[in-house]
Amino acid sequence: MESESFYGVTLSEKEAIAQFEVPDVPEEYIVHSHKLIIKQISLGPEAKTGEFNVVQAETNINDDGEKKTVKIPIAVLKVGETRSLRPNVEFPNGSVTFKLVQGTGPVYVCGKVEMNFGEFDDGQIYEEYSDEEEDSELEFDEEAAPQTNGKSNKKK
Amino acid sequence: MESESFYGVTLSEKEAIAQFEVPDVPEEYIVHSHKLIIKQISLGPEAKTGEFNVVQAETNINDDGEKKTVKIPIAVLKVGETRSLRPNVEFPNGSVTFKLVQGTGPVYVCGKVEMNFGEFDDGQIYEEYSDEEEDSELEFDEEAAPQTNGKSNKKK
Amino acid sequence: MESESFYGVTLSEKEAIAQFEVPDVPEEYIVHSHKLIIKQISLGPEAKTGEFNVVQAETNINDDGEKKTVKIPIAVLKVGETRSLRPNVEFPNGSVTFKLVQGTGPVYVCGKVEMNFGEFDDGQIYEEYSDEEEDSELEFDEEAAPQTNGKSNKKK
Amino acid sequence: MESESFYGVTLSEKEAIAQFEVPDVPEEYIVHSHKLIIKQISLGPEAKTGEFNVVQAETNINDDGEKKTVKIPIAVLKVGETRSLRPNVEFPNGSVTFKLVQGTGPVYVCGKVEMNFGEFDDGQIYEEYSDEEEDSELEFDEEAAPQTNGKSNKKK
Amino acid sequence: MESESFYGVTLSEKEAIAQFEVPDVPEEYIVHSHKLIIKQISLGPEAKTGEFNVVQAETNINDDGEKKTVKIPIAVLKVGETRSLRPNVEFPNGSVTFKLVQGTGPVYVCGKVEMNFGEFDDGQIYEEYSDEEEDSELEFDEEAAPQTNGKSNKKK
Repeated sequence: MESESFYGVTLSEKEAIAQFEVPDVPEEYIVHSHKLIIKQISLGPEAKTGEFNVVQAETNINDDGEKKTVKIPIAVLKVGETRSLRPNVEFPNGSVTFKLVQGTGPVYVCGKVEMNFGEFDDGQIYEEYSDEEEDSELEFDEEAAPQTNGKSNKKK
Repeated sequence: MESESFYGVTLSEKEAIAQFEVPDVPEEYIVHSHKLIIKQISLGPEAKTGEFNVVQAETNINDDGEKKTVKIPIAVLKVGETRSLRPNVEFPNGSVTFKLVQGTGPVYVCGKVEMNFGEFDDGQIYEEYSDEEEDSELEFDEEAAPQTNGKSNKKK
Repeated sequence: MESESFYGVTLSEKEAIAQFEVPDVPEEYIVHSHKLIIKQISLGPEAKTGEFNVVQAETNINDDGEKKTVKIPIAVLKVGETRSLRPNVEFPNGSVTFKLVQGTGPVYVCGKVEMNFGEFDDGQIYEEYSDEEEDSELEFDEEAAPQTNGKSNKKK
Repeated sequence: MESESFYGVTLSEKEAIAQFEVPDVPEEYIVHSHKLIIKQISLGPEAKTGEFNVVQAETNINDDGEKKTVKIPIAVLKVGETRSLRPNVEFPNGSVTFKLVQGTGPVYVCGKVEMNFGEFDDGQIYEEYSDEEEDSELEFDEEAAPQTNGKSNKKK
Repeated sequence: MESESFYGVTLSEKEAIAQFEVPDVPEEYIVHSHKLIIKQISLGPEAKTGEFNVVQAETNINDDGEKKTVKIPIAVLKVGETRSLRPNVEFPNGSVTFKLVQGTGPVYVCGKVEMNFGEFDDGQIYEEYSDEEEDSELEFDEEAAPQTNGKSNKKK
């Protein structure tokens, strides 16, 4: 089953951090894959003139077999210059943390969560299949691996 | 059957609220899934200089099994600074309310409605199937669940 | 068969209106569905400073079973402020009329036409099928209905 | 087989024209369909202040059975006002010519070429099939027809 | 299996070059196809006023059977004029090099890597198939060929 939902958080001086985790599903289900897409980041009307507001994303990527944490600004906003952006960046590898590393906001972050989940029985099939082919034969780092369609993300 | 249609509303001081509901279909049909995509929000030529016009979206999301109402501005417009935006945000969970919470407009909101609907007989199949697998066995909150491809939205 | 083509019209004081109709196909074919997507609207270099140029779209939508004509500006352009826009709005329901309701242009409207058409024989199948299921049993307003994949648009 | 490639050309006073043709494939292959998508057009840092740079596209479309040449600006750029644009316009019908009709540049045009091609044997199948259904029975102007998925473009 | 991952690099005076290569996969897998999409390029808040920051992409394309290196700026940024861009350009042919050819940055480059890979056994099937049909019969330059869905990229 595929599922989509709206994602919206407000960052400010008081609440400068927003963390996105794989959404919970009932025990009978497993998440095959998921993705957060950031569609728009914009400054509120009360944002201070002349102040930079910088939103940094922190996420894990798999850099040639090595786990690596990437920290990179995805929005540099300033009243009168850049009121809003549509970065359209996508985070398919587990969790992401957004942090207002500069400025006092408010900054509105809007996006979409896409999730692909199934019933446990489907999961069993994946599990058995992967026991043979992935767990025992391959050294492929499943934890750090980029999101695949179901198999390597089954334990999350 | 999939169906698409243009969506366009004008918000102003007098008509500051626009509510989007799941579109009606004839009794013989059921809506499997639907989605509203906001493509562009722009100020009319008569909008006042120096005035902020803020469009807020209010919608329900499923935050780890809990129903939660999200209110977040999706457009902060100002003559001479930000005349128009293309938020491209998507609302797949039932109804959304757009409100001009600041400013006098006019603000033009344009987008697209996507709908997936079928005949009642298909619905029956969904119903029976889900009676066994979802209603009785799972505690998954169907009302608050993000839009899925047919099954859990069948009662809307 | 699916088909795509470039769409480009210039609006000005002299030619302020552009109408888009379902494209003609040879008699042996029928159009199952079609859509006009407006990708970019921009002012020419000779547009007057300080003048607003407003492009209005007029189209029919199906508002809960009722035919309704929507007139809404899809571009508010002004030299030095907003030279060009990418509205990305889509018109899947039959004809659309674009009108330069304010300003003298020139305004360049660029986009894409998507069309899904088939041979007449396929059409026959659709017809028979729908005679039973749609025409006789349903009160669903086919004329005003949003574009579906083939069935309800067959008579256009 | 589907194929994609990056497209990038620089227009300037000296080289004001860039023509895009259907890409060559080896003799054993035939191109079923192709498309050029213009993603971004931007001015170089050395572009002159106050000068308009206008990029015009010239292409053929099929206007209700009649071949028609469309000439329309797809980018009106000016230092300090519009440094870059993302027109996202698509040209699915054969060749396109981009011309810097105003200004001295440099203007960078970036995009993507999508191509769908197959081996000659598949082409034979298309040919035979179309001999019966398209060439002999229909008056449909194949040369001017918008791009279809393989059949009517087989002779290019 | 399809896989997606976030791509993010920072270019500055000290680290002016970022090279993207086909990602490593374990020996048992082969990459059928891959693609880098550049979603957003933006200046950091500390970028110098009045300074141009130009990011150039260098990649190989297949120009009518001939290998050709294309060097083209994909971002011309300047504080107060163009703080950020969303080029949305795609690089499907092997490696790409991004170089800050003008300015001192920092410049944030965000995007997405899409990869299509499979187990070696699938590769064998491709190999045998292609031995007969591609390697021996065709003169098609596989190295320089644009990305195809698996077959001609199998040796990378």
